[in-house]
This record gives sequence, structure tokens and C-alpha cells, in this order.
Amino acid sequence: MDPSGMPRTGVGVDVHGFAADGSRELWLAGLLWPGEVGLEGHSDADVACHAACDALFSAAGVGDLGTHFGTSRPELAGASGRTLLAEAARIVREAGFEIGNVAVQVIGNRPRIGTQRHLAEQAMTAAVGAPVSLSGTTSDGLGLTGRGEGIAAIATALVIART
Amino acid sequence: MDPSGMPRTGVGVDVHGFAADGSRELWLAGLLWPGEVGLEGHSDADVACHAACDALFSAAGVGDLGTHFGTSRPELAGASGRTLLAEAARIVREAGFEIGNVAVQVIGNRPRIGTQRHLAEQAMTAAVGAPVSLSGTTSDGLGLTGRGEGIAAIATALVIART
Amino acid sequence: MDPSGMPRTGVGVDVHGFAADGSRELWLAGLLWPGEVGLEGHSDADVACHAACDALFSAAGVGDLGTHFGTSRPELAGASGRTLLAEAARIVREAGFEIGNVAVQVIGNRPRIGTQRHLAEQAMTAAVGAPVSLSGTTSDGLGLTGRGEGIAAIATALVIART
Repeated sequence: MDPSGMPRTGVGVDVHGFAADGSRELWLAGLLWPGEVGLEGHSDADVACHAACDALFSAAGVGDLGTHFGTSRPELAGASGRTLLAEAARIVREAGFEIGNVAVQVIGNRPRIGTQRHLAEQAMTAAVGAPVSLSGTTSDGLGLTGRGEGIAAIATALVIART
Repeated sequence: MDPSGMPRTGVGVDVHGFAADGSRELWLAGLLWPGEVGLEGHSDADVACHAACDALFSAAGVGDLGTHFGTSRPELAGASGRTLLAEAARIVREAGFEIGNVAVQVIGNRPRIGTQRHLAEQAMTAAVGAPVSLSGTTSDGLGLTGRGEGIAAIATALVIART
Repeated sequence: MDPSGMPRTGVGVDVHGFAADGSRELWLAGLLWPGEVGLEGHSDADVACHAACDALFSAAGVGDLGTHFGTSRPELAGASGRTLLAEAARIVREAGFEIGNVAVQVIGNRPRIGTQRHLAEQAMTAAVGAPVSLSGTTSDGLGLTGRGEGIAAIATALVIART
């Protein structure tokens, strides 16, 4: 088996709480979701893009959001999830990998992912330069997402070392 | 790299709460688990099969349970998890993908997955037409599963675009 | 498509609560983390190694931690996460699979994974005999990890059937 031809899997989870400030906008999966309560965070708190970044980093074995977008790169402070996702894809390619795909599932009571799924997939696919799928589910009223405290996202990614 | 030959990864999580009605049966991973408390839901609330469906949809980039088994298909209202899983596999193949495998982990205090693991794997493998593995774990008494409020399942899937 | 050449994906989650006994050491991802509060458990409660084991078993379809390291093998009682991870990799190879990679994400307030990431990746990679990546995140103060009740880990793995 040629190790350079073997895909590698990665995984990433992210969680953000809903903002106490009801006027904050919701940015999720690279899109604005009009009329929804926003998520708290220094950045735009886009859990879907953040989980996708971490899944890509994890597959390539190059660390995580803190490694790449921490205090060492002040120019990225407050960058959008979409910007970070494009930068994560660049870093993974620079490390010698092609990107196969990224799959993201959003877990939460709101928003209804289906209402903007295609637009969000287009935005994230453009940022990554490889197929990104988006899906949504709820947790039946249980746990932090079920109690409406916040939104979670889970992502997996496949990358392959360039020959 | 031939994109048609590259596998794609997908992910799916599902959660259902235990039924307040103690007489409800537990359907999980395509099987009845005698003597266990059932899960609440309009359907059979089979979190393992539902997570597997979403992992397959996610890998193929064709939406989620809500997209395919929502109100647009009333004939599937109340369908068993096993029926939905077979239908999800059919949809993914119709969209142009072969299915590599699906892996499902059940997180909860009950039931003990090992007691029926092989039977459940057979049932889900038959529904998908590709290998489905089933495993189980607990969350050390913490979180919604640890407090015995419900059962969670997490699944990953690999599909490959037909050449 | 040659099924023997198709990679298989697997997934594993593990959770352990922090020890009430403040003198217990923290073992995580195959390493001692000095000055951190330990996790409760009969074993060393290394959630990262345990999740990695279950992801490998799940990908190969050979059960889970309970199947392999339960009461049937008393010589493994109290074995370290690192020892179990090496044994899991041996079992998966014996079952006819090569191991592509394993990706593990730790979710918790503490420790800061970045401080020992490279050492931990070396330890786990040596145990598995294939690349293991380690990343870390928090859950924004929410859920069991956000409330500081414990640490969760999630892992994915790729294996491939030997031709």
C-alpha cells in the first residue's frame, strides 16, 4: 500500500452559546440567517465553519484552530468563519495534502438548516475548494442544544497526501 | 487524482429521550431489545439507524433525514429505522455513489450493545447492502446519556462516486 | 470496485469525569499532564486513547472496548490507555486490516492540548504504528465539558482490508 495514496480522516466539533444580546446576528455555515438569534463569541462564532476547519486540520495532522488562528496571527482576530475555512484549506494544501471532502452536521433547535442548505454548501464549498456537505438535526429537547443553550456542529474530512 | 475514485466521508448524530410511557418497546439498530425502556418519538426513534442514514446522506451531499423523510413523503411516516436505512442507501446509490461502509456507536447507559451486536450488525448491513459496524459506550454518568435521559448515536460513512 | 481496496471509516467517543480526589494524576493521549486534575475511572481514564481504540475497532467492525478489554482479559485490568491502544491496533491488524490513520479531538476546559500536542501525537502514533493526530477544543462553557464535569474525546479512524 502506497501511504501517499491513502486518504486520511479527520474530525472536529465546535459549540457556541446563544448570545444574551438578542440583537446579535446569526452567522452559520458561512451565511447570515435572518431573524435568528446569534451566537456568542469573539469571532462570528460560526460553529459549522469552525468544526470544518478543525476536521481539515485533524485529517492533515497539523494541529487545530488554536494552533493556526490563535494570538500568533492578530490579523485574523475577528475573521469570519468563511475566511478561516478558506485559510484552513490553504494551510492543509500547503502541508502537502489534497482535500477530498468535508461533511458538517449542525445540531440545534434553530435554525432550520434546510431553508438555506444549498446556499450554505455553495459558500463553504467555495471556501474549501472541494465538496462540503451540510446537514442538520436536533437532540430531542435534551442536552445543551435541546435546552436551547447553543448550537453544536460536528464535521469529518478526508484528505490525501499528494504523490 | 481522479475525483470519481476518491472516497467521501460523512457524519451523523441522533438523540432521542427515553419514553415516559414505560410500556414502549426499545427499537435500536434495527432490532427490538426485550425488557428495555423505549425511546420517545413519532417514529420508532431508532437513533442508530437514524444516525447511519444521516451519515450516508452527509457523505453523498444529498441533505439529511428532513430532506428525504419529511412531510413530503407521507408514506414513510412512522417507518422503522431499518426501512429508512434501506431507503437512504437506495437514495445514495441513485445519486451516483457506491457505499463503502457505515460505523455506528451508541452512547448510553442501556442497553448493553454487546448482547445483540452481531444480530444488529446483520440487520443494518442487510439494510445498507454494505458493511455496518455497531459499538457501544457510556459517558461515565455525565451529560444527557449519563443521567439516563436518553440515548445518542454517532455514525460515520464512506461512499465513493461511481466512475 | 475492489472491496479489499476500499478504506473503511470508524468512530469512537469517550467521556470521563474529573476525579473528586484532587491528588489523582491526569493521563490523557498517552501522556501525563503535570499539575492537572485527573479523571475518574478503574483504568487511567485516558479518554483520548479509549476513543481512538473504539474508532479503530469500529472501522474494522470487530466490536468495542467492552468486547476486547472487558472481564474476559483480566491481564488488561488497569492497563494504560497507551497499552490498550497498541493492543487495539494489533487486534485490528490481526483481523486483516491495515491502519491508515486515527484523528482524535479532545473537548474540555483543561488541559490546553497545544502545550503537549507533539509529544502526545508521538506517543499515540508509536502505539498505533500509523499517524495519529490530536487536537483540542472547548464547548463555550456549555454541557458537561463546559461545566468542567469531565473531558470528552471523539475519534475517527481509517483502515483498509489487506489484499
